[in-house]
Amino acid sequence: MKLIRFGEIGRERPGVLIGEDHRIDLSSAFTDWNREFFQESGLESLRSLNLAGFPQIAANERWAACVARPGKVLCIGLNYSDHAAESGMPLPNEPIVFQKAANTVVGPYDHILIPRNSVKTDWEVELGIVIGKDARYLESIDEAKEYIAGYCIAHDVSEREFQLERGGQWTKGKSCDNFNPLGPFLLTEDEIQNVHDLKMSLSVNGVEKQNGNSSFMVFNCYYLVHYLSQFMTLEAGDLICTGTPPGVGLGMKPPEYLKSGDIVELSIEGLGRQRQVCKNA
Amino acid sequence: MKLIRFGEIGRERPGVLIGEDHRIDLSSAFTDWNREFFQESGLESLRSLNLAGFPQIAANERWAACVARPGKVLCIGLNYSDHAAESGMPLPNEPIVFQKAANTVVGPYDHILIPRNSVKTDWEVELGIVIGKDARYLESIDEAKEYIAGYCIAHDVSEREFQLERGGQWTKGKSCDNFNPLGPFLLTEDEIQNVHDLKMSLSVNGVEKQNGNSSFMVFNCYYLVHYLSQFMTLEAGDLICTGTPPGVGLGMKPPEYLKSGDIVELSIEGLGRQRQVCKNA
Repeated sequence: MKLIRFGEIGRERPGVLIGEDHRIDLSSAFTDWNREFFQESGLESLRSLNLAGFPQIAANERWAACVARPGKVLCIGLNYSDHAAESGMPLPNEPIVFQKAANTVVGPYDHILIPRNSVKTDWEVELGIVIGKDARYLESIDEAKEYIAGYCIAHDVSEREFQLERGGQWTKGKSCDNFNPLGPFLLTEDEIQNVHDLKMSLSVNGVEKQNGNSSFMVFNCYYLVHYLSQFMTLEAGDLICTGTPPGVGLGMKPPEYLKSGDIVELSIEGLGRQRQVCKNA
Repeated sequence: MKLIRFGEIGRERPGVLIGEDHRIDLSSAFTDWNREFFQESGLESLRSLNLAGFPQIAANERWAACVARPGKVLCIGLNYSDHAAESGMPLPNEPIVFQKAANTVVGPYDHILIPRNSVKTDWEVELGIVIGKDARYLESIDEAKEYIAGYCIAHDVSEREFQLERGGQWTKGKSCDNFNPLGPFLLTEDEIQNVHDLKMSLSVNGVEKQNGNSSFMVFNCYYLVHYLSQFMTLEAGDLICTGTPPGVGLGMKPPEYLKSGDIVELSIEGLGRQRQVCKNA
């Protein structure tokens, strides 16, 4: 299944995507693709639903984030071996974990807001994992797959000055409004062929900047879910952004950053495309 | 007003505290002390409510966190000048900001869970700020007060090995389950005399470990709310943990940490007391 959400900000409703652009409104059958839905085996109910008879969503309805606002957004830093090599950084011994504020999550075609006083707003295409049921102290990496609802594109927008030059931890540069476009759809775990062999790309104004593959992840999706569950309960509906391949603006010589009017396009094989226009906050 | 919540985990309900221990059940009048309540001027409705006729809460009902699970929990590091001096660290030029996962928030008398494989679980008494309405790009520090719903005790429990020795950012040591006991009550902003002159203390097994005063904050509450709003929207119901005074276990010579069975008691002048028993997760 491909889960989507639609409608204006604050009034998003759940649906599914059939094929490329046939969107079905399921708001009469489900409240939202939120923690309760995933935790209470909602995906099983959804799979057994006869979709005939549910209305189509109008083409002009906004595409919202593909799942409800997560309880938390965990992110993994420096998780691509080719990106680490490019940066001249050693591979981390353990996953580097940080958080984005959950209210950064917006739709896949919403604006990227360039924060006021920002001069270093940067891009990062990432593979997003959405947790399917509460995970606490998983016993093995093998069982992690059962705790994953599905995968989606997650844009980990970052302000490098706020992140790296304003003191202390990364939060200030990772949690600005609209800094996590998510979607267009969540592909459920059962429908992905090999999550660790997906082409990923990102372009700015039509010029390709990132071109990678999830096979270069240092710590793969199952490893990460098991690992994180040793520190905290991952709740159904939580989001994990798994790191970015080479080609971010910070790594360019000279560095390149986003400005109002720029157009950013992202894609991950099998998970669709995002497109955002940058706009001053 | 003193806002409280009560009831078993996952079924908490709102109430108010009169005096020291007279708890009134307001669940028939309000859904919860959550984002919608604060954002939609719920505090004004509450103030105009005639409390006569509402039932008393049974003494054996659990004290829950004083507000609903926040959308985000922002924390300030190294924010007490006496703590910085004790640690031999220079004062930060700007607030050091990090996050705790919001599902760390529990009641003021719930257990502290010592995470599996933890050897360095530590304490930190902190003054918590709860946001009263959405704050984005505040124009001045002076107006910050209008955006604060109130204050409470926040225990920023921390695992120092996870935080400092396991690679990268602090998240892993700050977001373990039950790592943010909150309450017992939220004192509304209008009822606090001087939030920047409150005695704070913490003891372990009856031995005083922390003894400070909020007057030593490097960046005060109003500064922090204004500052953070320049990076991200602070939403009604969000929590800010404003940093800890001297005397954490990490700073002892030799360092001291919590173990199962230890009893931690916290107090802040005018904001009541917390008490937690440590237990292995």
